[in-house]
Amino acid sequence: MIKFGLDGMGGDNAPHEIVKGAVDAAQKLSDEDVIYIFGDEALIKAELGKYKYPDEKITVIHASEVITNHDTPVKAIRRKTDSSMVVGLNYLKDEKIDVFISAGNTGALLSGSTLILGRIRGIDRPALTTILPPMVGGKPLFLMDSGANSECKPNNLLEFGVMGSVYMNKVMGVEDPVVGLVNIGAEESKGNTVTKAAYELLSQSDLNFKGNVESREIPESPVDVLVCDGFTGNIIIKYTEGLAMGFMHILKDKLSSGFTAKIGAALVMDKLRELKGMFDYSEYGGAPFLGVRGAVLKMHGSSNANAVKNTILKSKAYVENSVVKTIHDQIMSIAEAAEDEDDL
Amino acid sequence: MIKFGLDGMGGDNAPHEIVKGAVDAAQKLSDEDVIYIFGDEALIKAELGKYKYPDEKITVIHASEVITNHDTPVKAIRRKTDSSMVVGLNYLKDEKIDVFISAGNTGALLSGSTLILGRIRGIDRPALTTILPPMVGGKPLFLMDSGANSECKPNNLLEFGVMGSVYMNKVMGVEDPVVGLVNIGAEESKGNTVTKAAYELLSQSDLNFKGNVESREIPESPVDVLVCDGFTGNIIIKYTEGLAMGFMHILKDKLSSGFTAKIGAALVMDKLRELKGMFDYSEYGGAPFLGVRGAVLKMHGSSNANAVKNTILKSKAYVENSVVKTIHDQIMSIAEAAEDEDDL
Repeated sequence: MIKFGLDGMGGDNAPHEIVKGAVDAAQKLSDEDVIYIFGDEALIKAELGKYKYPDEKITVIHASEVITNHDTPVKAIRRKTDSSMVVGLNYLKDEKIDVFISAGNTGALLSGSTLILGRIRGIDRPALTTILPPMVGGKPLFLMDSGANSECKPNNLLEFGVMGSVYMNKVMGVEDPVVGLVNIGAEESKGNTVTKAAYELLSQSDLNFKGNVESREIPESPVDVLVCDGFTGNIIIKYTEGLAMGFMHILKDKLSSGFTAKIGAALVMDKLRELKGMFDYSEYGGAPFLGVRGAVLKMHGSSNANAVKNTILKSKAYVENSVVKTIHDQIMSIAEAAEDEDDL
Repeated sequence: MIKFGLDGMGGDNAPHEIVKGAVDAAQKLSDEDVIYIFGDEALIKAELGKYKYPDEKITVIHASEVITNHDTPVKAIRRKTDSSMVVGLNYLKDEKIDVFISAGNTGALLSGSTLILGRIRGIDRPALTTILPPMVGGKPLFLMDSGANSECKPNNLLEFGVMGSVYMNKVMGVEDPVVGLVNIGAEESKGNTVTKAAYELLSQSDLNFKGNVESREIPESPVDVLVCDGFTGNIIIKYTEGLAMGFMHILKDKLSSGFTAKIGAALVMDKLRELKGMFDYSEYGGAPFLGVRGAVLKMHGSSNANAVKNTILKSKAYVENSVVKTIHDQIMSIAEAAEDEDDL
């Protein structure tokens, strides 16, 4: 039995798309699984009233406040104690739910998770992750940190490699995930102070470390887990979005600029729509916030019902395969190995 | 009268495409302008022998050695003193030529320029630049540093803003160029230690500073000059290349996967080729290495004759508009203003 927690008030399309996504997911859950929606009870029940669904599968937990994108993260978590986000995270901490999913203020979700749940012992910096959809390579790429920590120490990048490997293995079913380090050259000697030191730590670890990955190679998905600091990760994620839009723009422009091309454009329109769909991150479900003591998933702010449904259904593997405990165990074994070495 | 210097031995297509580009450019030069090609005299004269061109416009300066991409930059500059690159840079230092253009080893060209020419007084870190072709916005974007300095201090980013503005103004003819800072959020408070401090320096400067630019916005060319450290710049440049290839791959794949789409593909093929051309950096001529005491331009290693010709012809404005002197003057006036402030 899994208890899914959903922030009913977070994101651009809350509560209607969030509620609709929960209803859609409820139809597909196992018998004993249930969904808790946190938020304004009247609003959410009004939305639920629009649909037919198995009543016993969705419970509304009232929360009188909402953390918006205009709120300052830490302040919002401390002051809005009856917000859907804070109430939900407290339910997760108290093990009244197994996973908490939100499309709300990213910074607040990160701060709230860290403050309320605490970090996994041995993890210095929890990280935000993003799954980059496959382009050339055909398999998705797990990028972390994609924005939680704008500055990182080499040791943090090693932690990211460990956490990402556990997630890819336990949730995505990848055996012995290959780990890469975002860098500005293939050779070991390339990069800045942090990446050079991180390269050494990753090489010495038990991870399946492939070495440096130049950004040019990213679309080919040369690894399963790609680690970098949150500044670099954020640049990569947002540039992917920006360039996808830019390419679509150019393409549309080109396709409509000549007579024969116009006929061609009409014929390839369906294919273009598919192409656009490949850059719809919502298809891959939410992004886990790894390193905190609990399963927290962040959805894109513009998530629709389909993204909400996918995220709920895909989070099942996260809960069932003890990701948090495995991360803890692996980080502890690295720490012990380091201690043993110090003793020599 | 301008004396253009060309590294005849640098790049994947040397010397044949380099020589051909010089010949093509020679046809278009003003009466008094001349081109010096540095490299193996026999080889280059053999290439020159293939073409008809005004003899007095091209002079070959013999250099017995070649710096390859396998050479370690600083070591190569110090040891291969009779290489086409070192001989050419010495000619530039001695004012026997006005500009030096190379498609050779980037690291060696950067090290060689800095060691042989020296830095402009007041410039701490010379920077490599890249012109990103326009996508949505319709105007090119001047990105610097695109890879010379993997670590930067806030003051370096201010220097990049000054140098980029001077270049955009003097060479590209942009009046009062708008400067932006690559960052992971629009607000002043976003970013890492370096970008936060750089934001403050840029705001207080006389530059036309627009503020932070998120990578998502880059394809819209929201500014003329975009500054960042060389690590971030390199990630952006190489990711642009990688994603361009990735999108072409997906598109071709999509276009060939159905019958109607195939017909469409045939019809849009010309347009696709144009699209590809938009990401051909060679169209924009070489990238200046700004901050050293002399006009040095780097071409892409795979440059063909057309790129060589364009770079030679476009470098004219660089030489004629005293870019190096203007950078010096502006940096000095900033330094003096800072001193005045210290005196208060």
